[in-house]
Amino acid sequence: MDITQICQRAKDVKYDVQKLSTEAKNNALRNVADALVLNSQFIIDENKKDYDEGVKNNMHPGMLDRLLLNEKRIAAMAEGLRQVADLEDPIGQEIEHFERPNGLKISKVRVPFGVVGIIYESRPNVTADAFSLTFKSGNAVILKGGSDAINSNIAITKVIRDSLSTDGINPDAVLLIESTDRNDTTKFMQMKEYVDVLIPRGSARLIKAVVENSNIPVIETGTGNCHIYVDKEADLDKAIPIIINAKTQRIGVCNAAESLIVHEDIKAKFLPAFAKAMKEHGVEVRADEAAKVIVPDFNDASEEDFGKEYLDYIISVKTVSNVQEAIDHINKYNTGHSESIITENKETAAKFLNEVDAACVYVNASTRFTDGFEFGLGAEIGISTQKLHARGPMGLRELTSYKYQIVGDGQIRP
Amino acid sequence: MDITQICQRAKDVKYDVQKLSTEAKNNALRNVADALVLNSQFIIDENKKDYDEGVKNNMHPGMLDRLLLNEKRIAAMAEGLRQVADLEDPIGQEIEHFERPNGLKISKVRVPFGVVGIIYESRPNVTADAFSLTFKSGNAVILKGGSDAINSNIAITKVIRDSLSTDGINPDAVLLIESTDRNDTTKFMQMKEYVDVLIPRGSARLIKAVVENSNIPVIETGTGNCHIYVDKEADLDKAIPIIINAKTQRIGVCNAAESLIVHEDIKAKFLPAFAKAMKEHGVEVRADEAAKVIVPDFNDASEEDFGKEYLDYIISVKTVSNVQEAIDHINKYNTGHSESIITENKETAAKFLNEVDAACVYVNASTRFTDGFEFGLGAEIGISTQKLHARGPMGLRELTSYKYQIVGDGQIRP
Repeated sequence: MDITQICQRAKDVKYDVQKLSTEAKNNALRNVADALVLNSQFIIDENKKDYDEGVKNNMHPGMLDRLLLNEKRIAAMAEGLRQVADLEDPIGQEIEHFERPNGLKISKVRVPFGVVGIIYESRPNVTADAFSLTFKSGNAVILKGGSDAINSNIAITKVIRDSLSTDGINPDAVLLIESTDRNDTTKFMQMKEYVDVLIPRGSARLIKAVVENSNIPVIETGTGNCHIYVDKEADLDKAIPIIINAKTQRIGVCNAAESLIVHEDIKAKFLPAFAKAMKEHGVEVRADEAAKVIVPDFNDASEEDFGKEYLDYIISVKTVSNVQEAIDHINKYNTGHSESIITENKETAAKFLNEVDAACVYVNASTRFTDGFEFGLGAEIGISTQKLHARGPMGLRELTSYKYQIVGDGQIRP
Repeated sequence: MDITQICQRAKDVKYDVQKLSTEAKNNALRNVADALVLNSQFIIDENKKDYDEGVKNNMHPGMLDRLLLNEKRIAAMAEGLRQVADLEDPIGQEIEHFERPNGLKISKVRVPFGVVGIIYESRPNVTADAFSLTFKSGNAVILKGGSDAINSNIAITKVIRDSLSTDGINPDAVLLIESTDRNDTTKFMQMKEYVDVLIPRGSARLIKAVVENSNIPVIETGTGNCHIYVDKEADLDKAIPIIINAKTQRIGVCNAAESLIVHEDIKAKFLPAFAKAMKEHGVEVRADEAAKVIVPDFNDASEEDFGKEYLDYIISVKTVSNVQEAIDHINKYNTGHSESIITENKETAAKFLNEVDAACVYVNASTRFTDGFEFGLGAEIGISTQKLHARGPMGLRELTSYKYQIVGDGQIRP
């Protein structure tokens, strides 16, 4: 099938998916979960082809690990599907209802987008995740995974589609672009006539390519140059554990901290403790001159460092003389993801909350909480760093649009 | 100023606009309204240059009329600004608040987009309208109007900027791209680094060009191939006035009806009355074979007619044998704007409301009600025909995003 045919099939099936009852969707999700477990060996065998190819191509060990599927990981994928089945169905919810003086009754009702496209990189579990969330929210989905995981993705999609067919549901509710030709990916991004929304998940480079080449509305996700600002009125017993957590708990994720900002009045007291904590956790510190006055051991930070999402055991340090300077620095260098202030002063905290331009702004907490599960959404398709439609963690509700249903009795416009 | 400089200035001012109090914004809007009236003669003089140029270039009389400004129209523009001042300020509203088991307090708060870009065609009153709505919603705005109205737009923007300055507000809250070079317009669409959202207002051709060339998130507005379906259980005393209203009350607008769908069981009774009404209102009817059996005078409809937004005294007619066929026809040819069913059967109406894929779906009412004022939004920046972010009439609230503000007490992620 070429790209146009795939997109046409998704468009053809979207109204069927939209009409599925909550019960039908939940049953189907639970049956897909069982089918994935039942077909573990098939999926593992196909995944081995990708893994062996990765080994042959000297893939980075971290990447290889993310690519690998085993019984435990497939069971976790299945469990994810069951959890989505348990979530509330957003479709059909009445968001607002009002009546106009002329008697028109207007309801604003939650509806699916229609066809959602997802372009992602090598983790094959995204295939099952993305299906479950788009399906539960009443959408047909077209998946374009990374070529590194192509055999795994084909296998997982086959199991999902077979299970849907068994349930009497049109399997085109999930379609995989099997081509690994980059031209086909670019062509897919131009399928505005068929695809309602496109969500890229992966590296900054992938996301940039999608934004630049797509004529489909895009939701940008996931790049995070996150800061922690230690104010002069910070409680250092909170600051140090929060920084350790935000920087080191998982270095490769978008909500990890990449930069520390410190108020000059507290630097002499705070930076030595910070230096010790970073050393203990194997984190390289790249600091400005004012910070190096206190801890000469720090490496030098360049202008480039402040704009960088390291995703590594590195953190930059910037010294400021007031909260406004911290806010300005963040608004200049951040990616609109997650930012945190450590302070006991409520006014300073309020100013930071209001003026920092990011999806999630924290007071006295780790940036690592920016996550659909941690927010209680029950699921997550990604974290939006744009301002259109959704911002921050996106769950089922963020995979929907709305429509107005207006009931009249013969009204005409005067 | 080149495009990059203009965009940089908007980016520099956006946090200042965001911080303005509701009172400061409302005062500024009322003062701009007064200034427009006070400077009517200056605006009229500048507008005359555009008008004379239009006459010289044989501009269509309808277009010339839309271009023309006089005292009455400037007073109406000013009145529009005062009305926006009276509307509720969406900024800072708490949309949701919840507390997590770990004690994190999460507020979802309405915030401005930041910088909004608006690309529009010849009506100069859009300049004042677009300013008032983006300003009230806390955004900086960059306007790119049509070259036909360039002198008018420069004059109106000057009056607005001078008035803002007098109020101690940075006039860069509104910036006009004065260049009429198309390359500059294309360059503007690529200013993702500076502009948060781009809204095109105008012809289908303009909107298509923006969608295809922009790397900024776009809200598509305004193309409307709207249908009215007369069901077999329609009350014809409602059907005829609704069709006359939807088709002829204003032919050049996006919520005007362009196509009639009729159930075959009612066609013999309905079509002659419809034909008479259309004839009386000077509307040409282009019908399928089944309709022409009843009224042989109708012209022939081609496949192309069904996909057409005429914006003229023309209507197409399609005959169907059930509501499903009507829904399928609409979902194939419509532009996601406004669709109406005329029926007394509640089940049929519910099916139509649920299954027609459009921003606004009506039962027994004219499609002409799809409008921010008619919906009670108090204002309108446009009617979104896409599903991302906003759908249907967009008022102040639709010109905003949100952010999460999270207050903790030292929480780290386990």
